[in-house]
Amino acid sequence: MNLHGKNIIGDKLVAGGEESFRARSPLDNQPLEPDFYHASLANVDEAMELAESAFARFSATSGAARAVLLERIGEEIIALGDTLIERCHAETGLPKERLVGERARTVSQLGMFAALVREGSWVDARIDTAQPDRKPAPKPDLRRMLIPLGPVVVFGASNFPLAFSVAGGDTASALAAGCPVVVKAHEAHPGTSELVAMAIRAAVAATGLPPGVFSMLHGAGPVIGTALVKHSHTRAVGFTGSSAGGRALFDAAASRREPIPVFAEMSSLNPVFILPGALRERGEAIAEGLKVSVTLGVGQFCTKPGLFFGINGKDWDLLEQSLARLVEESLPGTMLHFGICESYQKLIAHAAETDGVDFVAKSKMHPNAAKTQGHTVIMKTSAHNFLQKAGLREEVFGPFALLVTSQSLAELETIALSLNGQLTATVHASPEDFREAALLLKILERKAGRLIINGFPTGVEVCPSMHHGGPYPATTDARFTSIGTAAVLRFARPVCFQNFANAYLPEALRNDNPLGIRRLVNGNPEIFKSPESDDLRNREC
Amino acid sequence: MNLHGKNIIGDKLVAGGEESFRARSPLDNQPLEPDFYHASLANVDEAMELAESAFARFSATSGAARAVLLERIGEEIIALGDTLIERCHAETGLPKERLVGERARTVSQLGMFAALVREGSWVDARIDTAQPDRKPAPKPDLRRMLIPLGPVVVFGASNFPLAFSVAGGDTASALAAGCPVVVKAHEAHPGTSELVAMAIRAAVAATGLPPGVFSMLHGAGPVIGTALVKHSHTRAVGFTGSSAGGRALFDAAASRREPIPVFAEMSSLNPVFILPGALRERGEAIAEGLKVSVTLGVGQFCTKPGLFFGINGKDWDLLEQSLARLVEESLPGTMLHFGICESYQKLIAHAAETDGVDFVAKSKMHPNAAKTQGHTVIMKTSAHNFLQKAGLREEVFGPFALLVTSQSLAELETIALSLNGQLTATVHASPEDFREAALLLKILERKAGRLIINGFPTGVEVCPSMHHGGPYPATTDARFTSIGTAAVLRFARPVCFQNFANAYLPEALRNDNPLGIRRLVNGNPEIFKSPESDDLRNREC
Repeated sequence: MNLHGKNIIGDKLVAGGEESFRARSPLDNQPLEPDFYHASLANVDEAMELAESAFARFSATSGAARAVLLERIGEEIIALGDTLIERCHAETGLPKERLVGERARTVSQLGMFAALVREGSWVDARIDTAQPDRKPAPKPDLRRMLIPLGPVVVFGASNFPLAFSVAGGDTASALAAGCPVVVKAHEAHPGTSELVAMAIRAAVAATGLPPGVFSMLHGAGPVIGTALVKHSHTRAVGFTGSSAGGRALFDAAASRREPIPVFAEMSSLNPVFILPGALRERGEAIAEGLKVSVTLGVGQFCTKPGLFFGINGKDWDLLEQSLARLVEESLPGTMLHFGICESYQKLIAHAAETDGVDFVAKSKMHPNAAKTQGHTVIMKTSAHNFLQKAGLREEVFGPFALLVTSQSLAELETIALSLNGQLTATVHASPEDFREAALLLKILERKAGRLIINGFPTGVEVCPSMHHGGPYPATTDARFTSIGTAAVLRFARPVCFQNFANAYLPEALRNDNPLGIRRLVNGNPEIFKSPESDDLRNREC
Repeated sequence: MNLHGKNIIGDKLVAGGEESFRARSPLDNQPLEPDFYHASLANVDEAMELAESAFARFSATSGAARAVLLERIGEEIIALGDTLIERCHAETGLPKERLVGERARTVSQLGMFAALVREGSWVDARIDTAQPDRKPAPKPDLRRMLIPLGPVVVFGASNFPLAFSVAGGDTASALAAGCPVVVKAHEAHPGTSELVAMAIRAAVAATGLPPGVFSMLHGAGPVIGTALVKHSHTRAVGFTGSSAGGRALFDAAASRREPIPVFAEMSSLNPVFILPGALRERGEAIAEGLKVSVTLGVGQFCTKPGLFFGINGKDWDLLEQSLARLVEESLPGTMLHFGICESYQKLIAHAAETDGVDFVAKSKMHPNAAKTQGHTVIMKTSAHNFLQKAGLREEVFGPFALLVTSQSLAELETIALSLNGQLTATVHASPEDFREAALLLKILERKAGRLIINGFPTGVEVCPSMHHGGPYPATTDARFTSIGTAAVLRFARPVCFQNFANAYLPEALRNDNPLGIRRLVNGNPEIFKSPESDDLRNREC
């Protein structure tokens, strides 16, 4: 493996500032070669200037051209072969088979956005034709579509080093929209980041686009990240990470002279409500599902369920026992990096010391600190206690969950009302349970971006109807998703063209609909007609 | 006319805090009866609690039910008859015929949103059906739609006392989305606000909705407004007004524990570029159009053009002369209130004192201070000077415009690049001009929300393709519009329903599409089939 460790600013490789760092493998806590160079503030400026200078040409490319870029990025990533998987495994400790799967998902996401922009209807074209004879005033011709915002800064996430990092969903959707991207690499997997960034760079070059379409900088601490967010050319920010980090970026963006949107996905406990009928009918299966969902990826998924709510009784006790048995047999796993593992141990210790919180079970096998391992831990408390302790509503990143015992459905509703914003909320319910669950579901609809019935929150589909977002503090903006085709909408804004001659309109808005996209014409879906009979085609304006 | 002067909190009329105020008519600078009572901070809390308590029921109403409410509000406003027009005229000085027109527009906006939500497709329903046999993991059933955000705070604008005030576009679109509204009345037209608020209250009662769906509070200065924005139940804010006011609300919202979106429309100079061919062909007509656009509503439109750019030469001199002649004949007009008039005089005086800025023309008739009159003023400067003086890029609210003379098209492009964000940008161009205007148009596309060819920015159509928004400081969020059907999108967020039984889904997402709306099913527009052959209808999930 030949890594250069440099910052990638368009087609230049730049050693950057004076400081350097090495990745440290969580598998053995040893540093990995080579040295990586932190970017300087001058590099931030260079990267953003280059992105800005590339914007005019890149934003004017067709959806088809951007689709070719996205697909080429996927091909270049695949072409990295085992080199990528090996390095990523060494840097993150994630199992190779998981990384192969995550790579497939990453390439598939790129392909999904390629298909979206090649098809083209995402620009939400709307046309209202002129009425020159309208009284009291003529109506002009008005046509609206989405255009890209401008350069986008993306922060790589540590927990999905491929699917939410350098070429992850944020980058893919920003490029799809027509926005140049500058990535701030996550310092936990700089080698993986470099490999993927070089793949993107190769794809940009191969498709003849300006190099400024993509850059990637290294940097520890908040200095480089904040400078990227504050840079006057930056028009939007994508981030997945901690609440403190996301909020700091949000605040930096909001305090700019020209505020810009920050799409930060930050923290979610993904509460699971298990109603009595479901518990009675399939308590054992639910316990098994919860255990799998909590331990998946050593509990480091943003959709890991961390709170289980049920009503006091024999079946709830049985679920606790089943879950305890399953958790005891679960194996400790290597966490993403030392900092996360240390933080996990502290948060568990803190929960254990909280008044009214009792230990339920943990992995029998002791975690190996030399391998940065975390072990599954389950605790429990009463609904009464949960309602009084705001600390129990904070995310514990890792394979931990808290069982909360209520006395009644009414108390479950009170708990639901007390929750912070979440990415997901899950309800296990039998048909009889449903007859009484309407209020609970309505409450959860206000608290979460995705409601799941009789399932588990981990395993996020990548498709048009996915919404991966939720009220604060799950994200900074519940109106947008970071997964699925709608993610592209984060990086676009509408522009209205009034009284433009057909030849000067963007293709998406021309009379003859050369892109063949879905459009709204005079308030109704456009009806595709033969060219001879097409009203719009024959219109002069 | 029988005005009570109280705050309207649902179905209660509340005298509020200890202070009161009277409206002052700009027509004669005399106070108008009765006293209006400022709300107290306790009233803010009451109004927001009531809005929150009404949300569950209101958000669950059908689009049809909300359409009935919106139409009823329109009917109640019409039923106020001349009382509304008289009071509004007295409070704002706007001519009665203009107010009759604005009332029609207000009612028509309500009707447009009624039609939008009655039809129902605005919720952007997307369905991805389950694939239980998919490998390696089954795909769950996923369905996504927009739901209302929660209580919305609306700040009435002074320049459209009907169409952008109590029952204006912000209120109409928030109610259409299913959000209760609390209006902070503009202190320049409290009587108009009360009349309209009572009309809304009557409509809420008549349609059997909970009273908390609508409240309106009075308050001077920032205290009540800030408290409304900071209230934990507030989920979004609509505002039209000054840059300082809008930014203060944005900052207040961004610094909340849970930040919320603020849609503030603040300031725009609506630059007009007049290219040589157009100038030669129809300079006189352009001068006439500019004069009309600048003086409309005594220059108090958010789309008033305040900057005219052209290239040095005989035709440009002729345009200046034509414009001067037209402006000299224009009559001074009563401005909305004393504060605006005073500020206008100060800003003109400041412009006149700016180095390199020369006087061109003003209304010959002297403005009558006792009638709060402002007169049209045109000044001019060089492009060179304009580029150096940031102050010349600040909005002058009133009938003022600055002619800026460039030496070349390249200099016009440089000027365009230097501009702040705008609601609109206009280009007058002949077919020959267009051959060289591509770069200018591309630059303006990044600066404005609406681009106008050979027209004038005032006169904003209310339709699906309108975009009334633009990059900061024109608005705080260029991605959203405050005019047209898309305005409803400001007050909604998506929720994804995973694995819900058909009976527990919202109607918009049910298999048989009972609302008959446009939906995306498995990535493609749903094809309406007869009930017998409908795939979705026969699906069990």
